[in-house]
Amino acid sequence: MKIAILGGTGSIGEGFALRWAAKHEILVCSREIDKAVNAAGEYTGMLLNKGVVCCGITGCNNEAAIEDSDVVVLSVPYQGVISLLKKLAPFFKNQIVISLVVPMKKNKLFEYTPPKQGSAALEIQEILSKSVKVVSAYHNVSAKKLANLELALDYDVVVCGDDNEAKKTVMELTREIKSLRPLDGGGLASSYMIESLTPFLINLAIRNGLSDLGVKFV
Amino acid sequence: MKIAILGGTGSIGEGFALRWAAKHEILVCSREIDKAVNAAGEYTGMLLNKGVVCCGITGCNNEAAIEDSDVVVLSVPYQGVISLLKKLAPFFKNQIVISLVVPMKKNKLFEYTPPKQGSAALEIQEILSKSVKVVSAYHNVSAKKLANLELALDYDVVVCGDDNEAKKTVMELTREIKSLRPLDGGGLASSYMIESLTPFLINLAIRNGLSDLGVKFV
Repeated sequence: MKIAILGGTGSIGEGFALRWAAKHEILVCSREIDKAVNAAGEYTGMLLNKGVVCCGITGCNNEAAIEDSDVVVLSVPYQGVISLLKKLAPFFKNQIVISLVVPMKKNKLFEYTPPKQGSAALEIQEILSKSVKVVSAYHNVSAKKLANLELALDYDVVVCGDDNEAKKTVMELTREIKSLRPLDGGGLASSYMIESLTPFLINLAIRNGLSDLGVKFV
Repeated sequence: MKIAILGGTGSIGEGFALRWAAKHEILVCSREIDKAVNAAGEYTGMLLNKGVVCCGITGCNNEAAIEDSDVVVLSVPYQGVISLLKKLAPFFKNQIVISLVVPMKKNKLFEYTPPKQGSAALEIQEILSKSVKVVSAYHNVSAKKLANLELALDYDVVVCGDDNEAKKTVMELTREIKSLRPLDGGGLASSYMIESLTPFLINLAIRNGLSDLGVKFV
């Protein structure tokens, strides 16, 4: 598959590029094409150093990458993603869009601040055409651990989506990342639950002197 | 300590009685005193069979047990607990009250239905006098696994409460149950988050063919 990673030069974007590059073609996207091209080169080098043969990691602008891809990963903070998608909406057709977006604000601690639609995933589905299949996942995966290829991620990833085929594809992509277990979280209407876990986990980490918390259902 | 377990004849009540009886005096409560006395005898026998020496497990009515206890565990479903506590409120003084109460309803799946206060724990604190210290915990512990003394419970228990001493006591009680790890979840205002995890976990179990799910933050 061709996977475009919006915000692909950021830390969580880097992790996905590195983890999926052995099996998929990766398009690293950024508003600044130079940054995207540099990051793509850097990731290719990192994988070569580890003896991993890539299917190809390319730096792209957002528009071209979206048009050319099967899957688009939104690894962009909530604050920027809505206006960005409103501009980019015409370039989508029938891609699977993976939202790891969490609307939250920081007071003393972090607080989940969903939009009126109920969750970021539902708001994003509203912006994009109905043929685009939004799937909500990976909100609670540590960027640092994801980017560390030696690390098995003994986490669960709850995947929500209204299109069953798209959800299955994302669950399969999840299984390709060492030790991650995908769990079916139901439709997009349930996405608020996994989105709201993120500020909860960050607060829990702060209060208990922990870091990079993920979640496992046992 | 003296621990009164309201709903002590039910499955989750049984688990707490069995797990804490070696170190604490347990008052098993029920509206039907005969049922309470029988259950207390049964639990004592089960522990004796395993060679566990109890500090004493007694069957009691709710009123006497509350007056006589340091800690009151509310292992009663949300549907009954509010009217029950309104009747029993005069018998409380300055106990620690552990709420594992989750307001939820079942449509096709389970849904969290918090009261106007925001969570069951906040509603319960409103009913009881201010000197009573409500602590919210154990919503996501499997009754079946808790009652199986051979089983180490490799779970996390998020504990919320506004009184720090009371919260510490409950975290200590948690550590006394093999392998449970208590985590400070902040004040009672955060209880909605751990309460709402329960229907989410049940739905996740139903959708993914799992059972008795607990949660671990890793």
